[in-house]
Amino acid sequence: MSKVVCFGEIMLRLAPPGYLRFVQSNMLEATFGGGEANVAVTLANFGVDAGYVTKLPDNPMGRAAVNELRRYGVCTDKIIFGGERLGIYYLEKGASQRASLVVYDRKHSAISEAAETDFDWQNIFAGAEWFHFTGITPAISEKAAALTLNACRAAKNMGLAVSCDLNYRKNLWSKDEARKTMTSLMEYVDLLIANEEDSESVFGIKAAGADVAGGKISHDGYKEVAEILTKKFNFKNVAITLRESISASDNNWTGMLCDGGEFYFSKTYPVHIVDRVGGGDAFGGGLIYAMMNGYAKQDAIEFAVAASCLKHSIEGDFNHVSLGEVTSLMRGGGSGRVQR
Amino acid sequence: MSKVVCFGEIMLRLAPPGYLRFVQSNMLEATFGGGEANVAVTLANFGVDAGYVTKLPDNPMGRAAVNELRRYGVCTDKIIFGGERLGIYYLEKGASQRASLVVYDRKHSAISEAAETDFDWQNIFAGAEWFHFTGITPAISEKAAALTLNACRAAKNMGLAVSCDLNYRKNLWSKDEARKTMTSLMEYVDLLIANEEDSESVFGIKAAGADVAGGKISHDGYKEVAEILTKKFNFKNVAITLRESISASDNNWTGMLCDGGEFYFSKTYPVHIVDRVGGGDAFGGGLIYAMMNGYAKQDAIEFAVAASCLKHSIEGDFNHVSLGEVTSLMRGGGSGRVQR
Amino acid sequence: MSKVVCFGEIMLRLAPPGYLRFVQSNMLEATFGGGEANVAVTLANFGVDAGYVTKLPDNPMGRAAVNELRRYGVCTDKIIFGGERLGIYYLEKGASQRASLVVYDRKHSAISEAAETDFDWQNIFAGAEWFHFTGITPAISEKAAALTLNACRAAKNMGLAVSCDLNYRKNLWSKDEARKTMTSLMEYVDLLIANEEDSESVFGIKAAGADVAGGKISHDGYKEVAEILTKKFNFKNVAITLRESISASDNNWTGMLCDGGEFYFSKTYPVHIVDRVGGGDAFGGGLIYAMMNGYAKQDAIEFAVAASCLKHSIEGDFNHVSLGEVTSLMRGGGSGRVQR
Amino acid sequence: MSKVVCFGEIMLRLAPPGYLRFVQSNMLEATFGGGEANVAVTLANFGVDAGYVTKLPDNPMGRAAVNELRRYGVCTDKIIFGGERLGIYYLEKGASQRASLVVYDRKHSAISEAAETDFDWQNIFAGAEWFHFTGITPAISEKAAALTLNACRAAKNMGLAVSCDLNYRKNLWSKDEARKTMTSLMEYVDLLIANEEDSESVFGIKAAGADVAGGKISHDGYKEVAEILTKKFNFKNVAITLRESISASDNNWTGMLCDGGEFYFSKTYPVHIVDRVGGGDAFGGGLIYAMMNGYAKQDAIEFAVAASCLKHSIEGDFNHVSLGEVTSLMRGGGSGRVQR
Amino acid sequence: MSKVVCFGEIMLRLAPPGYLRFVQSNMLEATFGGGEANVAVTLANFGVDAGYVTKLPDNPMGRAAVNELRRYGVCTDKIIFGGERLGIYYLEKGASQRASLVVYDRKHSAISEAAETDFDWQNIFAGAEWFHFTGITPAISEKAAALTLNACRAAKNMGLAVSCDLNYRKNLWSKDEARKTMTSLMEYVDLLIANEEDSESVFGIKAAGADVAGGKISHDGYKEVAEILTKKFNFKNVAITLRESISASDNNWTGMLCDGGEFYFSKTYPVHIVDRVGGGDAFGGGLIYAMMNGYAKQDAIEFAVAASCLKHSIEGDFNHVSLGEVTSLMRGGGSGRVQR
Amino acid sequence: MSKVVCFGEIMLRLAPPGYLRFVQSNMLEATFGGGEANVAVTLANFGVDAGYVTKLPDNPMGRAAVNELRRYGVCTDKIIFGGERLGIYYLEKGASQRASLVVYDRKHSAISEAAETDFDWQNIFAGAEWFHFTGITPAISEKAAALTLNACRAAKNMGLAVSCDLNYRKNLWSKDEARKTMTSLMEYVDLLIANEEDSESVFGIKAAGADVAGGKISHDGYKEVAEILTKKFNFKNVAITLRESISASDNNWTGMLCDGGEFYFSKTYPVHIVDRVGGGDAFGGGLIYAMMNGYAKQDAIEFAVAASCLKHSIEGDFNHVSLGEVTSLMRGGGSGRVQR
Repeated sequence: MSKVVCFGEIMLRLAPPGYLRFVQSNMLEATFGGGEANVAVTLANFGVDAGYVTKLPDNPMGRAAVNELRRYGVCTDKIIFGGERLGIYYLEKGASQRASLVVYDRKHSAISEAAETDFDWQNIFAGAEWFHFTGITPAISEKAAALTLNACRAAKNMGLAVSCDLNYRKNLWSKDEARKTMTSLMEYVDLLIANEEDSESVFGIKAAGADVAGGKISHDGYKEVAEILTKKFNFKNVAITLRESISASDNNWTGMLCDGGEFYFSKTYPVHIVDRVGGGDAFGGGLIYAMMNGYAKQDAIEFAVAASCLKHSIEGDFNHVSLGEVTSLMRGGGSGRVQR
Repeated sequence: MSKVVCFGEIMLRLAPPGYLRFVQSNMLEATFGGGEANVAVTLANFGVDAGYVTKLPDNPMGRAAVNELRRYGVCTDKIIFGGERLGIYYLEKGASQRASLVVYDRKHSAISEAAETDFDWQNIFAGAEWFHFTGITPAISEKAAALTLNACRAAKNMGLAVSCDLNYRKNLWSKDEARKTMTSLMEYVDLLIANEEDSESVFGIKAAGADVAGGKISHDGYKEVAEILTKKFNFKNVAITLRESISASDNNWTGMLCDGGEFYFSKTYPVHIVDRVGGGDAFGGGLIYAMMNGYAKQDAIEFAVAASCLKHSIEGDFNHVSLGEVTSLMRGGGSGRVQR
Repeated sequence: MSKVVCFGEIMLRLAPPGYLRFVQSNMLEATFGGGEANVAVTLANFGVDAGYVTKLPDNPMGRAAVNELRRYGVCTDKIIFGGERLGIYYLEKGASQRASLVVYDRKHSAISEAAETDFDWQNIFAGAEWFHFTGITPAISEKAAALTLNACRAAKNMGLAVSCDLNYRKNLWSKDEARKTMTSLMEYVDLLIANEEDSESVFGIKAAGADVAGGKISHDGYKEVAEILTKKFNFKNVAITLRESISASDNNWTGMLCDGGEFYFSKTYPVHIVDRVGGGDAFGGGLIYAMMNGYAKQDAIEFAVAASCLKHSIEGDFNHVSLGEVTSLMRGGGSGRVQR
Repeated sequence: MSKVVCFGEIMLRLAPPGYLRFVQSNMLEATFGGGEANVAVTLANFGVDAGYVTKLPDNPMGRAAVNELRRYGVCTDKIIFGGERLGIYYLEKGASQRASLVVYDRKHSAISEAAETDFDWQNIFAGAEWFHFTGITPAISEKAAALTLNACRAAKNMGLAVSCDLNYRKNLWSKDEARKTMTSLMEYVDLLIANEEDSESVFGIKAAGADVAGGKISHDGYKEVAEILTKKFNFKNVAITLRESISASDNNWTGMLCDGGEFYFSKTYPVHIVDRVGGGDAFGGGLIYAMMNGYAKQDAIEFAVAASCLKHSIEGDFNHVSLGEVTSLMRGGGSGRVQR
Repeated sequence: MSKVVCFGEIMLRLAPPGYLRFVQSNMLEATFGGGEANVAVTLANFGVDAGYVTKLPDNPMGRAAVNELRRYGVCTDKIIFGGERLGIYYLEKGASQRASLVVYDRKHSAISEAAETDFDWQNIFAGAEWFHFTGITPAISEKAAALTLNACRAAKNMGLAVSCDLNYRKNLWSKDEARKTMTSLMEYVDLLIANEEDSESVFGIKAAGADVAGGKISHDGYKEVAEILTKKFNFKNVAITLRESISASDNNWTGMLCDGGEFYFSKTYPVHIVDRVGGGDAFGGGLIYAMMNGYAKQDAIEFAVAASCLKHSIEGDFNHVSLGEVTSLMRGGGSGRVQR
Repeated sequence: MSKVVCFGEIMLRLAPPGYLRFVQSNMLEATFGGGEANVAVTLANFGVDAGYVTKLPDNPMGRAAVNELRRYGVCTDKIIFGGERLGIYYLEKGASQRASLVVYDRKHSAISEAAETDFDWQNIFAGAEWFHFTGITPAISEKAAALTLNACRAAKNMGLAVSCDLNYRKNLWSKDEARKTMTSLMEYVDLLIANEEDSESVFGIKAAGADVAGGKISHDGYKEVAEILTKKFNFKNVAITLRESISASDNNWTGMLCDGGEFYFSKTYPVHIVDRVGGGDAFGGGLIYAMMNGYAKQDAIEFAVAASCLKHSIEGDFNHVSLGEVTSLMRGGGSGRVQR
């Protein structure tokens, strides 16, 4: 029995070492990741009983994915086996002016072709308090979108809090498809998480004066976006991450939380990037943790942003940082001095 | 313009280093291979103008596959780009009593979903002398089987010699499917290559007294198989490889050639295995080379088996050995003394 | 609640890659292992609810050890944190005439200095059927010996079957110390496992005509040893592994089971060694599995030896093989042919 | 038949991984590079028919160099085999205040001892439009200088455009030698490329107010240099790269093009360096591409500098970036956001 | 006979590659380091006859430590063998806001349990001019503190200059313990080296207005600290390093020397960090070198800071830079331009 | 002052990892080796004061070679710096029927172009007892041959014992050149070491009935060879190694010593090869050790062959085994059992 249930797709992540490109490397780092699995690991690292639900092929790769989640303390009892293949994403890490490149090879994955009968949500959510999903899962297939809707309904019925990270992925679906599908899911969502591009891509709600590609952001614009979102979908809370992209090596990273009334902006961290993938998921996991544990709003957004800031210094999708490390940073310990 | 044209599927080969299992490794060796591509590289290494034909996705992985073939001198001008994904096979290298394990993730690959209009065989075969394919290509999809048939017909019409390696893969199709499809292709084949299991699996023709899994083989039994095959399909030549599997680390390796009249058995090599995958393809490539260059039958089978023997000492699917190295071994230089 | 409980010390295993010696390498493979943990992983790999009990330091290394066990499905809920350090063993892998070299750095480890109050055996054994320990744990310290005795008593009282692998380690204690301590534990043991050296080293019971260092073994001699042991300590079953050491690269490997009446000898496997450490533990785990599942005696010893045979082809202490793979080998599938 | 022909020396590049120094590492990354080969690969990556001409030893190292060029689509048909050895350069990558260190071991290389009769320039240049060389080739030996002169004459006679990157290397020759030899080659050159140090080192033409080692540059000074060069040698175009060295980890990077009349300065990119070697060659290749494709002058310099900027994020000598990536950066996409 | 003698503990340093955390990595970089050994290597790299004194276990790990020192030219003749184990420190390299993490596993090391009779200081110091120790050695055990005192007395008696780097380590002892023990040693010290935290931690002497964790430092405050230290202990020279920690990736680095009368501040270097461990030792070694060679005070502090600045670009504890490289940087060559 | 002085060329050894060929690998293992250096390291590993004399370039590669020798305890004080380059040899490790491949790139190395005045043999040999060289050094250049002759003369004059390993290298000189030069050196030699091919290649003395390439050897034939050599050159002792090459993976390895009167044959070891290079040098070093320490003849040859047998299990040129390990094997401990 997990207190938080995350549902989505975990993939094999294949990345050339360091800053090599695919054409240069005959070795690939093989780890695992995916938006919702990343949140589950973050929560488990903070000591939360977090469970992850998906469908995986019954082969050594599928089992290795389960092992990796289990290794980091995520409950994998509700994962079912079957289907054709494990989804893959290839990642080339960018640097300086060269952006990171993601190539998806996730079509026909087990979860994308799972049947509604594969998951018994009553059983899955028994004893749980929180359900988390992202906009990636409904994007991978119509079947996965239907599963997500089922999960949302069941979660709502059973009284779970529901959080959703919009996570628009242009390589998975069009803006129109996203808008249509995500709109139908929003009624179940209590906490919406979005980055500076998502709300525009999915709902056409744009921060005034923002130049996302150019890395410029306006606080007032984001307030406006959060207000429109809140009004339109009646969310209890909306959180927005603000990434100022100086280059693929350096970003400024901030978060904002809006509880329908007030706006809470976090500190801004200048981050020198080790691995940026999963940064948003670390934010989401941090925010869920803070909210489940009754943090004050300003503390909650500071905790979430600090967790996410640290993620940028960690290799792989998963945020391998402890509660103590996040708390220490949130309280000002960002000078990076050696501890010994 | 290539003298030999090979057609099939080249895959990304993902293998944990050394003898690690998937569950143990966070690095995968990423090379490329596939039955027909392996033959093309073998021939290019011997100095033959060899071309490879397939369809690959237009992404960094597809282009890396082309680069790898080009690197080793294979003509890639006839490869077309498009389709969904690059096929993958995962490989765990076995040792001692533990067998190597192959997991295919090749469904929905670009070549398996290619259209008949994708390939203009008249143009592809212009100037060519030899066409090679294997029983893997028709096994991957009905579309690929149709493409193979088209290729065979065109090759025959244009006067090319046609060779086929039966290469039965139980994870791709049933014996019944294989028999039906392969039978229809046999009329175009001049040289058939098979290992000790293929003829039984595909055509139900069994070597009397053979215990393949147990690694026992009978010369007389194989003669019988070759005779039945020759009579049934009217091949000009039938070559059979005889692998006596002592363990995953040690094999005895022999070949036999039958030209409809005589039987030519090669020397038997006791091989200590570095990488056994592609051993059959190295044999096929060696045999094609020897036949194209008019070797006497006994020399041809000795050359093919020597080439294949050396492949077992080479990492990866491709047989990176030179003409001189094969010739030297064929003439007796198998003591492995350092050359300096 | 675990059906099988293993108790002992899990260590960080630091080994230079391949066949490098310590003086040559600036990288060390860092995995985990230990006689009883190895048995727990073997059982978890076969689908058994296996739990592991120890004490580990509350630092990143201690937690990484827990993660590794959890990754492979072992229940780690009863592991307690505290103490000074994680035990280490350095391993140089041998080859040909050069033996593998183990250097222990395990003194003052958390488990070696654990207090009797650290473990509540009533709670630990609740719901369990089997308790396994080895002669290594009492050897590491007097405190650990006392803990082992406590565990044995509790297990016996609660009706668990108890198995012990003698595992004499000359670098941990003298033969005299071993004899004294192990003798006091034998009364609780139902299944004793020993290799060809242990019974002589610990109890002075020697196989007639054996030349262990020279790799010569006599079946009759081992029968005699088993009989003497059975009579002396009243074991229900005694299992002895027989390792004929041709070199560090090649061994012949056999097992014998004696149930007080009959002797059951397994097949002998000629193994080409990838990693020999943990071979005995794979045997122990296999035998426990077979006995818990009611295998006939001959099948039980065949299963245990097949499991152990496969371990020699696996890197690291843990035996990452499946039930299916062991069963297949036990039934004759040892030719190592590629499966695809 | 290649449209662009590059002539020079390709070397084995041996570099300790990461930021290790030679004394620390027992592994060396083994790639290939050289000023003119780097330009050829850049052009091939942009889809240009680029050929590379040199002489290489007929051994596995020489053949591996050919394979590497072929892999990336460079035509290697005109490379000849023979001579004593493959040139080597050792590279220690610098960081922060520690400069990268290059140690040449290229004396007696095949190309440095090639005879004039080794190359038939009529044949080599048949069908070509552009010839590129650098100041490194004449520096390696008198024979190589003579070959370069022959190539220049033939290129001019056959109507090819000729470009030269001054590339002064103080470890290969003195400033006096450079001036004398390079002066005699300048009459054949249409496009001269130089960095902020070259024109002073080779021709004694210094940018007023420049403090190269200190990383300070003056736009007006460079204009002056370009004007003097243009007048003295009658170049059609002169391009100068301006590297402001903040440290071995961070540089500002700009380019200027002068067509005899106007001066075109590119944007300045602040680059966080992955691998700085080959940055100038990426500029040269980019500029040749832009000029061959009729880019407007301002676009040409922007394209060349963007290509070169991206090179600083790529490991190795070769610039593995696509036309699309350069164009995207040139148009403003330098924020390094993940594409997915 | 060494001119400089360093005494302390050399440890095996185990670090996951790159920025991986312990839980993620199955490989550890295995090098050696320790405050005093680092100083000895720095001096040997500058051509000084430097000797290192310690006690190491007589096993392959202990011998590998000796080999590593010997490799870099340190005299190891006075190292004695015996004792239980080699000390270990685990290191996770930090980045951006994540600090580097050091976990000590050095209790019960051979040197921490060495007897006073193990070292004959008369013999060890014969022919020496300088003795160097740090505050780490007396912190590891009472025995080691007694040894350090013996060494100091002998050194003083024999007329050696004595230097001490305070190097307070909170994981080894309390501030009270440190103050008490270090105070008793100060009477033998000629040159005291401290960083911005040490003097406060050990002697309660605090720089006015300093916010060390926050990375803020005040020149005047440090002058005050140096003056108080000088007066209290009558040092000939006090050197203080000033690290402004922007993050784990970027620091500003300065040094100050006070000779009782004047204060000499060095240049401040903005360092982009490769490996920060050993930075202080590189400073100490550099300062000892400069003082032994009669550098003017301002030159001495510039040399020491330049040496230390370069260390931050070097992997591992040891500062593998040459005299020429330090001198070049000290004279202004910090632009990091490639040398070729 | 060294008791044994070895003189020759130490090279950078560049080898692809595992069994990869050059064309497959972008990483090379970079170690050092050379016939005489290998002997020096063997002796240092046995505790002998061994010194190595050569000339190396004054660059990071030359200094790394010195460091590596120093690391393993060889005295490097007599090595001089200067000259053009460090010699290199490329090594591809063979397996099964594929032989290891060595490509020399050692022309123009510092030692091959050293002047007679570079070495002051009086000084070098002061205090020494034994001088060792091999037939490789005179083969690399006429200058090196002259240096070798000078060394031999000085050694003889100063009363040192002189040993020579014939070590014929067909890639360095012709048989005629070898015979002429080596004959002139033989008068200074006390102990001649040769393998089964050398005496025939250099002196035309052939073992009757030997088929070296085929791996067949005759004891009587070798006796005859030793007798002829002894008579011709008046050696005190002749040692011959007998390698029966089953394949590149498995050899049988024996040695014979002839003291002019008796013949002493060692045990024959079946070796499973990890790295065969340096096997002969390990034999030489072992024999020198045994003779210097007054071993009985039979013991001496057993010791030398045991040392050499173990070398085949060690990666790299150097024989990293201890006196204890050799002695243990020599006394029968070849079963490779784990020591723990």
